[in-house]
Amino acid sequence: MKDTGKERLHQVSAGSKRRDQQSGRLITRRNFLRATAVFTGGALSARSGYPMPEGHGQHGLADHQAMDMTEDYHSMMFTPGHNMEPGMTIEPPGAPRDDEVKYKEFSIEVKIARHEILPGIQVHMFVFNGQVPGPEFNVTEGDWIKVNFTNKTEEMHTIHWHGLAVPYTMDGVPMITQDPVHPGQTFVYRFQAKPAGTRWYHCHWGTPLHASTGMHGAFIIQRRNEHLKERFPYEREYTLVLESWDVDFAREEMNGLLEGMKQVNLLMAKGMLDPMTHGFFKTYQAFLEAYRNDDYVPPYLQGRSNRIPFRPNFFGINGKSYPATRRIGIKQGEWIRLRLISASSQSHHMHLHGHDFWWVAQDGNDLPDPRHINTIHVEPGGTYDIMIYGDNPGYWTFHDHKTTQARNNGIYPGGALTLLEYEDFEPSYVPAVSVDQ
Amino acid sequence: MKDTGKERLHQVSAGSKRRDQQSGRLITRRNFLRATAVFTGGALSARSGYPMPEGHGQHGLADHQAMDMTEDYHSMMFTPGHNMEPGMTIEPPGAPRDDEVKYKEFSIEVKIARHEILPGIQVHMFVFNGQVPGPEFNVTEGDWIKVNFTNKTEEMHTIHWHGLAVPYTMDGVPMITQDPVHPGQTFVYRFQAKPAGTRWYHCHWGTPLHASTGMHGAFIIQRRNEHLKERFPYEREYTLVLESWDVDFAREEMNGLLEGMKQVNLLMAKGMLDPMTHGFFKTYQAFLEAYRNDDYVPPYLQGRSNRIPFRPNFFGINGKSYPATRRIGIKQGEWIRLRLISASSQSHHMHLHGHDFWWVAQDGNDLPDPRHINTIHVEPGGTYDIMIYGDNPGYWTFHDHKTTQARNNGIYPGGALTLLEYEDFEPSYVPAVSVDQ
Amino acid sequence: MKDTGKERLHQVSAGSKRRDQQSGRLITRRNFLRATAVFTGGALSARSGYPMPEGHGQHGLADHQAMDMTEDYHSMMFTPGHNMEPGMTIEPPGAPRDDEVKYKEFSIEVKIARHEILPGIQVHMFVFNGQVPGPEFNVTEGDWIKVNFTNKTEEMHTIHWHGLAVPYTMDGVPMITQDPVHPGQTFVYRFQAKPAGTRWYHCHWGTPLHASTGMHGAFIIQRRNEHLKERFPYEREYTLVLESWDVDFAREEMNGLLEGMKQVNLLMAKGMLDPMTHGFFKTYQAFLEAYRNDDYVPPYLQGRSNRIPFRPNFFGINGKSYPATRRIGIKQGEWIRLRLISASSQSHHMHLHGHDFWWVAQDGNDLPDPRHINTIHVEPGGTYDIMIYGDNPGYWTFHDHKTTQARNNGIYPGGALTLLEYEDFEPSYVPAVSVDQ
Repeated sequence: MKDTGKERLHQVSAGSKRRDQQSGRLITRRNFLRATAVFTGGALSARSGYPMPEGHGQHGLADHQAMDMTEDYHSMMFTPGHNMEPGMTIEPPGAPRDDEVKYKEFSIEVKIARHEILPGIQVHMFVFNGQVPGPEFNVTEGDWIKVNFTNKTEEMHTIHWHGLAVPYTMDGVPMITQDPVHPGQTFVYRFQAKPAGTRWYHCHWGTPLHASTGMHGAFIIQRRNEHLKERFPYEREYTLVLESWDVDFAREEMNGLLEGMKQVNLLMAKGMLDPMTHGFFKTYQAFLEAYRNDDYVPPYLQGRSNRIPFRPNFFGINGKSYPATRRIGIKQGEWIRLRLISASSQSHHMHLHGHDFWWVAQDGNDLPDPRHINTIHVEPGGTYDIMIYGDNPGYWTFHDHKTTQARNNGIYPGGALTLLEYEDFEPSYVPAVSVDQ
Repeated sequence: MKDTGKERLHQVSAGSKRRDQQSGRLITRRNFLRATAVFTGGALSARSGYPMPEGHGQHGLADHQAMDMTEDYHSMMFTPGHNMEPGMTIEPPGAPRDDEVKYKEFSIEVKIARHEILPGIQVHMFVFNGQVPGPEFNVTEGDWIKVNFTNKTEEMHTIHWHGLAVPYTMDGVPMITQDPVHPGQTFVYRFQAKPAGTRWYHCHWGTPLHASTGMHGAFIIQRRNEHLKERFPYEREYTLVLESWDVDFAREEMNGLLEGMKQVNLLMAKGMLDPMTHGFFKTYQAFLEAYRNDDYVPPYLQGRSNRIPFRPNFFGINGKSYPATRRIGIKQGEWIRLRLISASSQSHHMHLHGHDFWWVAQDGNDLPDPRHINTIHVEPGGTYDIMIYGDNPGYWTFHDHKTTQARNNGIYPGGALTLLEYEDFEPSYVPAVSVDQ
Repeated sequence: MKDTGKERLHQVSAGSKRRDQQSGRLITRRNFLRATAVFTGGALSARSGYPMPEGHGQHGLADHQAMDMTEDYHSMMFTPGHNMEPGMTIEPPGAPRDDEVKYKEFSIEVKIARHEILPGIQVHMFVFNGQVPGPEFNVTEGDWIKVNFTNKTEEMHTIHWHGLAVPYTMDGVPMITQDPVHPGQTFVYRFQAKPAGTRWYHCHWGTPLHASTGMHGAFIIQRRNEHLKERFPYEREYTLVLESWDVDFAREEMNGLLEGMKQVNLLMAKGMLDPMTHGFFKTYQAFLEAYRNDDYVPPYLQGRSNRIPFRPNFFGINGKSYPATRRIGIKQGEWIRLRLISASSQSHHMHLHGHDFWWVAQDGNDLPDPRHINTIHVEPGGTYDIMIYGDNPGYWTFHDHKTTQARNNGIYPGGALTLLEYEDFEPSYVPAVSVDQ
């Protein structure tokens, strides 16, 4: 029934689970931290509260001297017992164990890969399971979900489950609800899929780059009884993840990150960089004092804005820009459902030609009264569900009416544009492809 | 009843219809195509399906050799029999003939003309019937509409009927539902005016430039029984088309287009430009192959974004910026209706002082429940209807609360700003004009 | 009950009222006007209609010769009898006298002060009563409000009461409903607090700079019977004013203003600048004629756009950027109300983690049907009320999902970001502070 043009996430069967253990070759900030004996090994502090599965990440750690810094700081980052070793699996508290509920288990890894937006436009991105958007979750309300998230990059990441009511320890916000997932580590997210509706997931570390380029994907939670089908008896549904990219920003930022990570590692190896003041503070007061004592210069004082401007020049639907976007099929007399998800930092104004459609849900929840419109304004962070009825056979563009975003690198037409295509009619005119302005 | 400050479209009476036949002096891409005998003359291919009225555009075409390219490509552009001669009238299929229904007939032409936004700010624009916005259609639900659209420029254009449920062949999207209307040609749009509400029309070729600068106009479809008058008994209504212009972008883009057209024509006359790969491809696969074989470099690979940035510096209501905008009249105890249409690529946040108003419709359709607000967020591509009740006599600004858009070339006040003016009270203070910051 | 992290406005008791009389040392445009004897002193023209309290601003003015310009121009600016002397108190018509209703009286002054957005980021702003945002009004529907607004800067200002149904003479739009309040002057705003809901106030002179940097504050009008408490029985409420700043624009603009004011004063003192054509015209026709006769070059013709670009680089909640923002407290089983006010020129997309909340009001008025969402789109000029129920203990970020606005000078995380913090649970992980990217 579904035809979203994206690979679905395959549920991990019990026997097939396999997790690559990174070799440890990388000299990362985390390795340095371990190497310089900042942390005690052995039992994890009750404070940090995160049990580590046996056999993970505890080898090689002996009785190093702990820094006395556990008094009021609960982050694993600088907590005795915190193990940043590659290959470690982190099991945060707050969810049932494997033997308490029946989990649907999935594995997601992030790598750096080249993604092709358009012929000739290939961009290095952080990607989930090798694809942009990441694989779509399509589960049922109330399902128990277990996601083994493995970081196969040199950067740090997390996953935030956007719009899901997960325990806070599974919410994926670095330094707020969890430590970032370090290179080589696996973080196990467990939660119940609720509430129903169109929701999504994305990285919450370095979000302006990571989430948009391209760590994002749909998380569809089907209702057990979809009452919307009474009024709108649809069979087919489509998920459209809207995206915007500044490929120049992405390239510079990505290179800067990797270069910066090298320097951090080098400085740490030489003992020249204090991990305590490198970005993380236990409290706002500690940050303030470091600033006032001239121990720390916040990066926002270093003139960043003008160095890497962010001006999106490519806009996508499910990872592709027009004319590479996939069309949406419909038949005469058919209802279809579109689930629109904004993984973009921009507002998109998706206008459908030849039809007024029904806007039925926002952020996964039904509107009290569906609204009859022809342009749906897809705002950053939001999700929007619309129902289209096939009563006007033809080819109909569905595109961003902010025309500057229906362009590729400034060339119209392009960007967030696709076609609604009737599959059961005899056309007198058939669409061609225009890539000229 | 209406006082929109704009010329209404005059319905064409049967006897007054007249269409200028362009002289053919221009050496256009289309002329070249004809001159180099790419197309057969004579009967139009049944495939393209578009009957040409007798006597139009068929003279001068004899039995040239056809390129064998009709197999799977239905566009008239490269179809044998396709005649791009100036003066041709194109009648697409999909609508009743003149003797089948009674049409209200209109004529619209597009020319390049200088439009004055403000004293001293004159911009060359593509304009409908010599005015910005184009003439307002104000018809009744169910009327049959016939629009003879003549292109009196060297560029290509179409008209898209935004929000109207027209046959797809009348939808005006180039290369998707019709060939673009070439210089000198007339394209006849025929459709029934439906559904009722505030809708509009604009060019859909090179939309970022054409539609905003300034090929756009209101298309109001009155309900036979306007039930909104029961709750909001208004007599007067106003149409406000919101606009944004980057006059530097418009100038560069317009010059570039005209220059480019010269070069295209020249190259074609010398046989140096292959029309098959100049922007249009029969299929996405053909485009992909041309790209992979190095036969074609898409324009988005040529670094456009940074060459002509688009940063609107003027913002308008019905073609004018404050202080040149027209005021909105109201009387005490009166309801008025405002129909707001976004012909802008920007979001506008129109705030009315001294009143909460009722937002009653979006995209032409009534909201299930009107909303009581004082700032209406007019998003690209959308239309918004609001009802204002006159219960607070005075002068009240109605303006974009994104204050950078209440400026003229960066100078506040200006832009999308006008006044609601009570016509029946004795003021103790009378508005002046401020053009300073 | 309230804990908004901002100073509340203290009601002025009858005895404590005191108004600084500026010394008159400044050589301002206004002083010049007086010094060059443009205006007659004595009784104020009935036309301008604004009575001046006895003893204010009339000393030192004798029988100068009036310019004959009162025929059709009602602005005080160039009206005989108009007194721009510092220290004058202006009482516009349109509201009851002190002995007619019982006023709650407040005093607000504007000064230029350094405001600290973040450690190390201090910006000179126009500020109300020394704070950003200005003091919050929190009154009851129907209260009579009297605000003595004193301008202690060299620039001109007004106060606009955004969303309140005040008499038009109290609406605070310069040259439309009142003359701007000149340096040293006090303008008395009187009105009844209505309608109920989340409303606000801001300067309406040079709004792009003044209102955002930082002359804005909340104006909460409590209902006598808050029926929303039946469905959402909240006790605590929070006001969050959202802001965006381009600190470079602010610095340049502020310096330019002050420099420009010096030059204006100097030119006027030398008789080289005609006040009649310096920015204000009696009618649009007068403006047009001045332009056409080459008597006047509007500032928008002088290439401003590219000289001071406006690209916000800091984003705030109640005057502060993350990590300096205050957290929002909640308890399990508790309803809280958030009143979001956009004092920003940008759109903000505030996403709450771990919860769907109820959006209950827009622009101060209840929605017909509350909407269940997790991201509220806070558009320029709008106010939005949401209700959050405490059913998921933890730490939850509440932030702009336009990720470029969750940055400080381009560095993520930062900007419009804070935490919803459960006050009554035992955390297994406690938030730290990240100021790194």
